[in-house]
Amino acid sequence: MKSAIISVGTELLFGQIVNTNTVYLSDQLNLLGVDVLFHHSVGDNPQRLKEVLEIALKESSLIITTGGLGPTQDDLTKEVVAEVMHDTLVLHQPSMDRIEEAFNRMGRNMTENNKKQAWLPSRATIFENLEGTAPGFALEENGRTIICLPGPPREMKSMFQKQAFPFLRIKSPGIIYHRMIRTFGIGESQAETSLLSIINGQNDPTVATYAKEGETAIRIASKRDTMEEAKAATEEMILKMKALIGEYIYSTENEELVEVVGKKLLKNKITISCAESCTGGLFAGKITEIPGISAVFDRGIVTYSNRAKIEELGVKEATINTYGAVSKETAIEMAQGLRNVSGSQLCISVTGVAGPDGGSEEKPVGLVHFALTYKGETLHKEIRTRNVNRTWNRNYTVLAMLDFINKIIDSN
Amino acid sequence: MKSAIISVGTELLFGQIVNTNTVYLSDQLNLLGVDVLFHHSVGDNPQRLKEVLEIALKESSLIITTGGLGPTQDDLTKEVVAEVMHDTLVLHQPSMDRIEEAFNRMGRNMTENNKKQAWLPSRATIFENLEGTAPGFALEENGRTIICLPGPPREMKSMFQKQAFPFLRIKSPGIIYHRMIRTFGIGESQAETSLLSIINGQNDPTVATYAKEGETAIRIASKRDTMEEAKAATEEMILKMKALIGEYIYSTENEELVEVVGKKLLKNKITISCAESCTGGLFAGKITEIPGISAVFDRGIVTYSNRAKIEELGVKEATINTYGAVSKETAIEMAQGLRNVSGSQLCISVTGVAGPDGGSEEKPVGLVHFALTYKGETLHKEIRTRNVNRTWNRNYTVLAMLDFINKIIDSN
Repeated sequence: MKSAIISVGTELLFGQIVNTNTVYLSDQLNLLGVDVLFHHSVGDNPQRLKEVLEIALKESSLIITTGGLGPTQDDLTKEVVAEVMHDTLVLHQPSMDRIEEAFNRMGRNMTENNKKQAWLPSRATIFENLEGTAPGFALEENGRTIICLPGPPREMKSMFQKQAFPFLRIKSPGIIYHRMIRTFGIGESQAETSLLSIINGQNDPTVATYAKEGETAIRIASKRDTMEEAKAATEEMILKMKALIGEYIYSTENEELVEVVGKKLLKNKITISCAESCTGGLFAGKITEIPGISAVFDRGIVTYSNRAKIEELGVKEATINTYGAVSKETAIEMAQGLRNVSGSQLCISVTGVAGPDGGSEEKPVGLVHFALTYKGETLHKEIRTRNVNRTWNRNYTVLAMLDFINKIIDSN
Repeated sequence: MKSAIISVGTELLFGQIVNTNTVYLSDQLNLLGVDVLFHHSVGDNPQRLKEVLEIALKESSLIITTGGLGPTQDDLTKEVVAEVMHDTLVLHQPSMDRIEEAFNRMGRNMTENNKKQAWLPSRATIFENLEGTAPGFALEENGRTIICLPGPPREMKSMFQKQAFPFLRIKSPGIIYHRMIRTFGIGESQAETSLLSIINGQNDPTVATYAKEGETAIRIASKRDTMEEAKAATEEMILKMKALIGEYIYSTENEELVEVVGKKLLKNKITISCAESCTGGLFAGKITEIPGISAVFDRGIVTYSNRAKIEELGVKEATINTYGAVSKETAIEMAQGLRNVSGSQLCISVTGVAGPDGGSEEKPVGLVHFALTYKGETLHKEIRTRNVNRTWNRNYTVLAMLDFINKIIDSN
């Protein structure tokens, strides 16, 4: 099946908004085995929207639009789509009821223009909006389908996943099963090279690598006649992949590294505290993303100044003077001091040069030391980040700390 | 002048790449006073590229393409553009010389297909590629211009800035000046309503509001004959806006709230420390985004457990038992305890229910208390976030803390 994606909204043409809807939808359509031929973005202008719809309909049997379903006068997607598909808008009472309910729930008065959202093409399959007020829909004619989704990404994604995807699944022959493998410590091109022998000349499952900030994700997707076959083919590919790059894989279920670590800490009831310098609280902030982590996370101490390192963690002034705040010795004293203060089973410390300034030849921006105390042992690790920029260095360091903890728990 | 942007490259349609070229070019064209009517992305397919070029040429006198200028067989932008503009490709010797030079410099052999890059439309104004090998160009016919730029963002931006922008400046009547006003604490629709009297029936400057996570940004743009006039009109609008919603505005220069606060702390040499519970280190992580903040930021203490609150900050056990960990009383003892421990001039504490669990009727998810000690005073504030989710609640709380600090510094 061939398709086009049309984003509607003048704000998209101002150069302030990155169009993430299009990326998301392209990825999802690829997953369904649908080819995407075009992306178009057009302002809130019915004539221009009609033009791109007509171009798109030449070759594509599926068009997805986002945006222009709201209550204001600018919102004209429905009107134009109905015209192109030879339908008219009628009042859809269940949608009207839901919109009224939503306003009642929020205790707000519904202005007259909100009713506009409940007028929908007469032949359409209506998609309820679980995250907002404007409903979406699919409208079909002569084997061609136009699906209209709301513009706000949260509403769009929710509606696509829960309603448009199942709607399209029925039309797409074959079953798709996919898994996302998550790795840390291996670059995208290195991952591709390592996997070449199992990717090359292979049509199903397909393997695609995605570079994320400091991480590489690998999508394995299989399209077969039955779910059983698709799953089996995917599982087989995961096994082959583990044989080649297993040491870098931390999840085969598309979990974040922090989720994986958080689960292990909670499951094994390992209490944890952290002492941070260069990451300035980001590690604590990351680990406390996990709901319920308070059962094991005791405290985090951001010792940004040398005085704080000495006062809070008992780092020796002499250590800082002799080796510097960014050193193996300081990292170790931070972790051990934290253990003494908190009594947590696992204590991790980090000190590094986040940049952009503060680097030297001996200790360049990107140099990071971390230390960890666990089960009576103190471990140290030194890394050098790629030094993309301060934000990247700090975020990468947090991932490296999580990776360190993940491996320590696994090996104990 | 009206324009369209066309991105060429099959990889754009796979859903793995966010098209940042389009955002950049739209913003730059807006600055030049050029209206952008369409964005199109199309694969490496000459017929489809021709279709979108023809659509775009209907209304637009300027089209910018990115991608498809390289050496491979897929790269067909030049051929199609030449055809549409009734020109032919000829060998451009200076480009050929530069490409050969580049290969010599890298010590690599130039494969035959690289010569393709030096074949350019005969009437074109050639843009040298200072960051890569493929040259770009502008081709004009009957008052219409097509500018072709390379696809890699670094090459594209460099060529646009140094060559295409000056080329277009000469053609563009009028100058656009714009400013981005940043606010906290006022929703987008409330901002629009408050500003209605100065927006309505007004063509220049234009005012557009953008909802960001917990914030509202407002763009003011003026298009006039001279930069002086455009600036004056924009400044006048900013003054009117300040009169209406000044209390919510924290920047008229598109700065982040943390930048504004960081600058004020550094400028006034106000030392700061923080004690966090529900935000779990995110406040410290946010403030340490600012390079050089170590001059004033001393330490952050993430007291996630009650024991940590008592041990690290000297919060009284009785206070927690009587009022709870999430209470005005605990927040105040946290801030005062932190002041005693750190000696920082400004100490801020926060404790709240981040969710998704842990809420009660009396203390629902989203309830947050913070306290601040500064110049001998202790201030307390209670907020209730909209409780979108745990991440939102925590990020919003960090912004609210920054906003609190910003106002305290201003009023002292």
